[in-house]
Amino acid sequence: MSKKQLIKPRTLKGFRDYLPDAMLARETLIDTARQVYRSYGFSPIDTPALEYSEILLGKGGDESDKQLFRFTDQGDRDVSMRFDLTVPFARFTAQHLNDLGMPFKRYHIGTVWRAEKPQKGRYREFMQCDFDTIGTESNTADIETLLVIHDLFEALGFERFTIRINNRLILNGLLEVRGLEEKSVAILRVLDKLPKILHDGVRRELSEVVGLNDADVEFIVNLTSDIARNGKEAEELLTRASGQLQSSSIGLLGVDRISELLDAAISAGIDGSRIQLDLSIARGLDYYTGTIYETFLNDLPGIGSVCSGGRYDNLAELFTSQKLPGVGASLGLDRLLAAMDELGMLETAATPAQVLVTMFDANRLCDYVRIGREIRKSGISAEVFPDAKAVGKQMKYANRKGFRVALIAGEDEFENGHWQVKDLDSGEQTAVPEPELVAHLQHILGDTTH
Amino acid sequence: MSKKQLIKPRTLKGFRDYLPDAMLARETLIDTARQVYRSYGFSPIDTPALEYSEILLGKGGDESDKQLFRFTDQGDRDVSMRFDLTVPFARFTAQHLNDLGMPFKRYHIGTVWRAEKPQKGRYREFMQCDFDTIGTESNTADIETLLVIHDLFEALGFERFTIRINNRLILNGLLEVRGLEEKSVAILRVLDKLPKILHDGVRRELSEVVGLNDADVEFIVNLTSDIARNGKEAEELLTRASGQLQSSSIGLLGVDRISELLDAAISAGIDGSRIQLDLSIARGLDYYTGTIYETFLNDLPGIGSVCSGGRYDNLAELFTSQKLPGVGASLGLDRLLAAMDELGMLETAATPAQVLVTMFDANRLCDYVRIGREIRKSGISAEVFPDAKAVGKQMKYANRKGFRVALIAGEDEFENGHWQVKDLDSGEQTAVPEPELVAHLQHILGDTTH
Repeated sequence: MSKKQLIKPRTLKGFRDYLPDAMLARETLIDTARQVYRSYGFSPIDTPALEYSEILLGKGGDESDKQLFRFTDQGDRDVSMRFDLTVPFARFTAQHLNDLGMPFKRYHIGTVWRAEKPQKGRYREFMQCDFDTIGTESNTADIETLLVIHDLFEALGFERFTIRINNRLILNGLLEVRGLEEKSVAILRVLDKLPKILHDGVRRELSEVVGLNDADVEFIVNLTSDIARNGKEAEELLTRASGQLQSSSIGLLGVDRISELLDAAISAGIDGSRIQLDLSIARGLDYYTGTIYETFLNDLPGIGSVCSGGRYDNLAELFTSQKLPGVGASLGLDRLLAAMDELGMLETAATPAQVLVTMFDANRLCDYVRIGREIRKSGISAEVFPDAKAVGKQMKYANRKGFRVALIAGEDEFENGHWQVKDLDSGEQTAVPEPELVAHLQHILGDTTH
Repeated sequence: MSKKQLIKPRTLKGFRDYLPDAMLARETLIDTARQVYRSYGFSPIDTPALEYSEILLGKGGDESDKQLFRFTDQGDRDVSMRFDLTVPFARFTAQHLNDLGMPFKRYHIGTVWRAEKPQKGRYREFMQCDFDTIGTESNTADIETLLVIHDLFEALGFERFTIRINNRLILNGLLEVRGLEEKSVAILRVLDKLPKILHDGVRRELSEVVGLNDADVEFIVNLTSDIARNGKEAEELLTRASGQLQSSSIGLLGVDRISELLDAAISAGIDGSRIQLDLSIARGLDYYTGTIYETFLNDLPGIGSVCSGGRYDNLAELFTSQKLPGVGASLGLDRLLAAMDELGMLETAATPAQVLVTMFDANRLCDYVRIGREIRKSGISAEVFPDAKAVGKQMKYANRKGFRVALIAGEDEFENGHWQVKDLDSGEQTAVPEPELVAHLQHILGDTTH
């Protein structure tokens, strides 16, 4: 018999497998996000991975920007894999407008694909985690977007994080009163580069590339430095801005909305030191038109914003003539997971089960299986080791996987109706009568069973 | 300004959107499956949607069988979207063998794509929900696979379901002792058609197509009719089979394993009437080599098996020379959801939130937002309606979405520190002082908040 030629097992460049430890952390993060979204009344939706390319590209879309995985299917259709969740959401709302009813609040947690050059921390397949409220211009939706972001990070276990906010109307108004509205695109393009090129770079580019005079350069640079770190500073900053914006009605509207947002957040119990007002943030040039959100981890500011979003005027203008204003944000799941890993916030177990029932005597298989199911009924997860291998080997397996407790029973224990319960953290081992076993396990596992 | 040409919003043939009501049901189903898998120590994994086509097709794979979405990517690689979770799992285990450790128990809930002809209830994109134990031949794994299926359907709320089991070794042994092993593939092919062609069809095909004599035809047909519906019948059936199998060691091994499986299931507390032994089920011709599982809903037998699986000898032989025996099953998520819908087992709400805070006075926005967050802190989900529309419109929204309670407050209520609490089921409305609001809501919502 000739030896068969094997196929080399490998994944495509830019794609990855998730092993149990990584996947358990990911599922916990997704569950937490879902729970927070749902608590605010956001409903889940899903859309197909594949769409007509026309839908994803939009009119005159620049394919190279979107790095589509695009091909012709068996039915000769030009199709592509979705590259974000925003365009499918726009198509979805236009298509199901009558069934959804407005306002409509949805979250969408899904995989997207981009054929871009893979690099550290950037993959061709990754998960997005978006939530949006559409069909309303009410500031309530903007306020709740801020609360959702806040409660999400708190629920994930972060204490030190900062949500930076702005309203594009204020920024637009300030440029307008200084007569810079025609250069606003170029100015915003420079401002977006601030984290990379720093103040000196901004100063240089505003002067050399955009061609601003010194006074205007200093005005813009001052904007980016003037960050209000608490409620009192925000009030002062907004008062100053109001003073400058008397001739700009949109600028004053922006001030009103952000004031109300700050007031409402504080009155809802948010710690004001977690909210910073930064009149210079814009997040891109075109899409957002009102409130802007960025979220930073105080202990890892270098990774950039891990949850960003804002208000937009019209979600689905490519697909419907109905105007759909909205506001929302997107959680950078993979970036956040990497950050939590770096901060030591992730559990490291490679098993979701807490108890390993070891197998000492294969003839008592029914007993091991029975006790496993008994334990599970109390809400404790339990795995039964399938083979009667040496106890040392089974213990090694238990430690490697991260079980908290191992049960052992051989002839003596079965005769006495006992189970040896080994706490794998303390190493302590106790013989426990079977009727007391579940209570004993609950005691060892403490709060972790809930 | 010329009217812009809109892109028609539409999904590809065979693909679908999930609106909130469908998606909420789906998430509940997935959560339940996950919880049961985890309670038995199965860990989650994930693999990429795209793989090298060579990996998915295997050696000499028949592409037409697999209906791949296949294309050449920007890097000139021949890639395909996964058509099931089994082949990626085989590739995954071979690739990460050293990191996983054996035995390895995993579940994988993921989307797969098949470019087959769409028809009622069959889509080109659907979700699979698999669990497997690999790296062991122990019957413990076969037994726990049965328990997982059982506990899963119980957890989903089914009372009337039947798990049909068999062991391919018994079937192979019986054919062997009758000297029919060379015709076994043809015979199994006919047996697999039983649900469609019924006994008369089986009888006719065995005679005319396979060319069996009358005695052999009757022997096979008897096999398919002889289903043991409880422990006692199973024992009798296995005793009869043992009698016939004295000259077949593999047949007797099959009898031993299925006897032990039945004993262990009963001793672990499974209701024996939910397990049926059917010596004729094979589930395909090649893949499974030991225990076989099929799951039927007693109230909807016509939809076929909703959870099927079995034991196999070697998971990843295309990718590694290490032999990896295993056992597992796959939950037919979409078929099951359709069934639960038909049986009226699905919640029909289109919102995950229980309480709608209506907005009566836009000037009190901060109060509506504040009370929403207050309620959420107690574990009750609450949505704040963003616009001060007519109360009737907001109530219509609340009823349409399926909220259980609406809160209303205007000038009078704010003056008295009260909230009007409207139970949307009973229609009853009560004025409740704010400090008592959460307790009052908990009372109305009862157990549903947990």
